[in-house]
Amino acid sequence: MMNSKKNAFYAQSGGVTAVINASACGVIETAAKSKKINKVLCGENGILGALNENLIDTSKESKTTIAKLKNTPGGAFGSCRFKLQDPVKQKKEYERLFEVFAAHDINYFFYNGGGDSQDTTFKISEMAKKLKFPLQCIGIPKTVDNDLPFTDCSPGFGSVAKYVATSTLEAGLDVKSMAATSTKVFILEVMGRHAGWIAAASCLASSNSEDPPHIILLPEVPFEKNKFLTQVKQTIRKNGFCVIVASEGTQMKNGKFLADSGLTDAFGHKQLGGVAPVLSGMISKLGLKNHWAVADYLQRSARHIASKTDLDQAYAVGEFAVKLATSGKTAVMPIIKRISDAPYKWKIDTVSLKKVANVEKTVPKKFISKNGFKITSLGRKYLSPLIQGEAQTNFNLGIPDVAFLKKDLLKKKLKKFN
Amino acid sequence: MMNSKKNAFYAQSGGVTAVINASACGVIETAAKSKKINKVLCGENGILGALNENLIDTSKESKTTIAKLKNTPGGAFGSCRFKLQDPVKQKKEYERLFEVFAAHDINYFFYNGGGDSQDTTFKISEMAKKLKFPLQCIGIPKTVDNDLPFTDCSPGFGSVAKYVATSTLEAGLDVKSMAATSTKVFILEVMGRHAGWIAAASCLASSNSEDPPHIILLPEVPFEKNKFLTQVKQTIRKNGFCVIVASEGTQMKNGKFLADSGLTDAFGHKQLGGVAPVLSGMISKLGLKNHWAVADYLQRSARHIASKTDLDQAYAVGEFAVKLATSGKTAVMPIIKRISDAPYKWKIDTVSLKKVANVEKTVPKKFISKNGFKITSLGRKYLSPLIQGEAQTNFNLGIPDVAFLKKDLLKKKLKKFN
Repeated sequence: MMNSKKNAFYAQSGGVTAVINASACGVIETAAKSKKINKVLCGENGILGALNENLIDTSKESKTTIAKLKNTPGGAFGSCRFKLQDPVKQKKEYERLFEVFAAHDINYFFYNGGGDSQDTTFKISEMAKKLKFPLQCIGIPKTVDNDLPFTDCSPGFGSVAKYVATSTLEAGLDVKSMAATSTKVFILEVMGRHAGWIAAASCLASSNSEDPPHIILLPEVPFEKNKFLTQVKQTIRKNGFCVIVASEGTQMKNGKFLADSGLTDAFGHKQLGGVAPVLSGMISKLGLKNHWAVADYLQRSARHIASKTDLDQAYAVGEFAVKLATSGKTAVMPIIKRISDAPYKWKIDTVSLKKVANVEKTVPKKFISKNGFKITSLGRKYLSPLIQGEAQTNFNLGIPDVAFLKKDLLKKKLKKFN
Repeated sequence: MMNSKKNAFYAQSGGVTAVINASACGVIETAAKSKKINKVLCGENGILGALNENLIDTSKESKTTIAKLKNTPGGAFGSCRFKLQDPVKQKKEYERLFEVFAAHDINYFFYNGGGDSQDTTFKISEMAKKLKFPLQCIGIPKTVDNDLPFTDCSPGFGSVAKYVATSTLEAGLDVKSMAATSTKVFILEVMGRHAGWIAAASCLASSNSEDPPHIILLPEVPFEKNKFLTQVKQTIRKNGFCVIVASEGTQMKNGKFLADSGLTDAFGHKQLGGVAPVLSGMISKLGLKNHWAVADYLQRSARHIASKTDLDQAYAVGEFAVKLATSGKTAVMPIIKRISDAPYKWKIDTVSLKKVANVEKTVPKKFISKNGFKITSLGRKYLSPLIQGEAQTNFNLGIPDVAFLKKDLLKKKLKKFN
C-alpha cells in the first residue's frame, strides 16, 4: 500500500535567534500529529540543504531531543545567508529544488526567515504553480530586528528585547555604583542596522526618567555629535552618570554609519564596526571616563534570558504554519496579531507572502521622543508585553542543557548539483 | 541606660560584582541577630562615605529590601576607586576615619573588596591598634578577577564564569549555524587585565574538544600572532568555525597589551581598548568573516545568570565576617576553603590580612594546555564547581526585580572634611 502521506521540507534562513528552534519544534511536533505529513526533512544549512540534497531526517531524532529544541539557541539545522538567483533570469537553482522535492516526495515547504527569505518562499510558490507541482509553501516569520511588516512583532525580537532591557538595567546599576570616582558613562552597542527596535527596547529597563538608559541612539534619528555630547553632559550633571544604548546602525544625516567612520589599527588597516568605540572616543575627549560593551551575537543567542511570550509565539507560528499547509494554503505566512495591550492578548493571523517580501518596518515617529533620545509611553506600551514572562531554561553542570541532534542525512537520490 | 551595642561600618570597594550585595546582605542580616551590633552604617560610595561622613542607615530599610539585595547586581551603597594615602607619610585621612568612627560609635569595620582594599583594611587595623581604638577590622573578599590569594576562589568570580561559559555556549551555537555561508569566527572579549581566570572559565562551555571555545587567550600566555592565526585556520579546517575567548589583558612577549596596539579613529585620536577588534582586524586579513563582542560590564553585573554557588559563598563571607568581628577577631578575612571537588564541598576559613595585601593569583601553568590555547582537565576540575547551580532571579514586568534603597543618611556630627 502506498503511503498517502507526503514529506515536508523545513529550513532556517538568515541570522538565527534564541527561539528559531522553537519554531522548528512547532513544525516537527505538529507535523508528527498530522495525518497528511510523513517526515519533516530539514535542510542542512538552510536552503543549501535542498540544493545539495543534504536533508536531515528528523524522524531519527528522539522526541526528547526535538522538545529540547525549545531550550536551544542558534539554528540547530544550520542556517545560511544565500539568496537564490532570480528565477526569470536563471532557473537552474529553482529547477534543482523541484527535482529534490520530487525525488524525496516533498509536498510541503516551510521557510523560517526574514523579509528576504519570504521573497524566496513566494517565488518558489509561484514556480510550483507554474510547474503544477503540488507544493504548499508557507513562510515562518523570524528576525531579531523586528522589521517584518504586517506582523505585530517578529519571533526572535522579544527575547533580544528582554536581554537588552535586562543588561541595561544590570550594567546601569554597576556604573551607577562606580560613578562617584570612576566610570561616568557606559555605552552598550546593540544590533539593528536599519531599524532601531532593539535599542528602543532598552527603554524597558527604566521605571522612571532618571533610570538608565538615558540616551538611546536609533538609525531612524540622524546622529548629531554636538547635540549628543550636550545630552551626555546634561545627564551626568543631573544623575551623576549616563547610560547610552546605541544601534549598530546609528548614522549621520548623510546616511553614513558611525561605525564606518574610519577606525584604523596600528598597521593602518581599516577596522570595521563598533559604534560603541566611536562614541567612546568622542566622550573620552570630554575627559569623562567611560566603558563600552558590544553585545553582538550574545544578544540574539541568549536563550537563557528569553522572553516566554516570544518563545510561545515562535512555537505558535511553527505550529500554525503546518496547519495552514495541511489545510491547503500556500504563499502565506502566519503572523502575530495583537488583540489588546493590557492584559496582553494575541492570536495568529495570516498574510499573503506577496505583500511581505522586502518591506522593512522601522520604529515609527510616534514611538520616539521629541529630542530623539527616548521612547514615548506609546512605544513602551507596544514593547512591554513582548518581554513578559521567563522561558524556563534547564541547566546541566552549570550550563544550559541544549539539544544535540544526530542529523542523519537521507540517502541521496540525485547527482551532485553544481 | 546606655546602649552597650556598638555600630558597624560596611563599605564596598573597587569594581562591583553580580553578588557583592549578597555579601552586604549577609553582613546586615547577621548583624541584626547579633547582641553586640547596633546599626550597620554603610559608606555611601565606599570609604568616601566614611571620610565625608555620608553614612547610610540600613536600619531604615525594610527587611524585604535588605533581602532583595541578594537579587541586585552592582554596589547598592555605591563603591569607589579611591586609595587612602599612606598613613606613615600622610595621616590626615586615617585620622579622619577614626574621628568619624568615634562620632558614630563605630567599633566594627567591614571592607568588601579586592587585594588593594584589603591592604587598606589591614592599615586601618594597625592604626586602631596604635590609637588603642576598639575597632574590629574584617576584610570581605570580592573580585570578579579571582586573583585573591589564599581563598580557593573569590566571591563574584563564579557568576562571571557562569555568564561567560553560558554566553560562549550560546554564541557558539549561533556562529556554528551561520558558518557554512557567513561568519566563520567569533571573538568574545572578557575581563581580566592581569589574570586570565574569566577567559579560562569559558572552557566550561564545551563538553568535548570540538565544542567552543576553540581558542582561549590568557594574559599568562604571551600572544604570538602567527601561532594564533595558524590555530584559527586549523580550527576552521577541522570544525568549519572558530570561537575565540580573549582576556582584555592579552599581551605580547614584551608585556604590551594587544588592546593598546594603536587604534586611531577618523580624527587621528587614539582609541583605547578592545582586544576583540584588534584580533578581528588580523582575522579579516585572512579573508575570514568574523564577528566580535565585548562583554565589559554586562559580564560582571549579570545577576540574572549568577552561580548559586557563588551567591551562597558571597553571602557566607558576609555572614562569617560579622561572626569574626563579634568574637573579637581583627585584621582577618574569611576565605573559601575547598574540601572536595566532586561532590564539591567547601567551608569558610580565615586568613590574616597581613598576608593577603597586594598579592595576585594568576592561572597556574598546570591549568593551561601545552599550546597555550586550552584549559587542562585539572583546570576544569577546579573551575567547574564554581558555576554550579542557578541563583533564582525574580522578575517584575519582564525585568529583574532589584532592591531600591532609601539610603537615609545619618545626621552629620563633624565638620566637612577637605
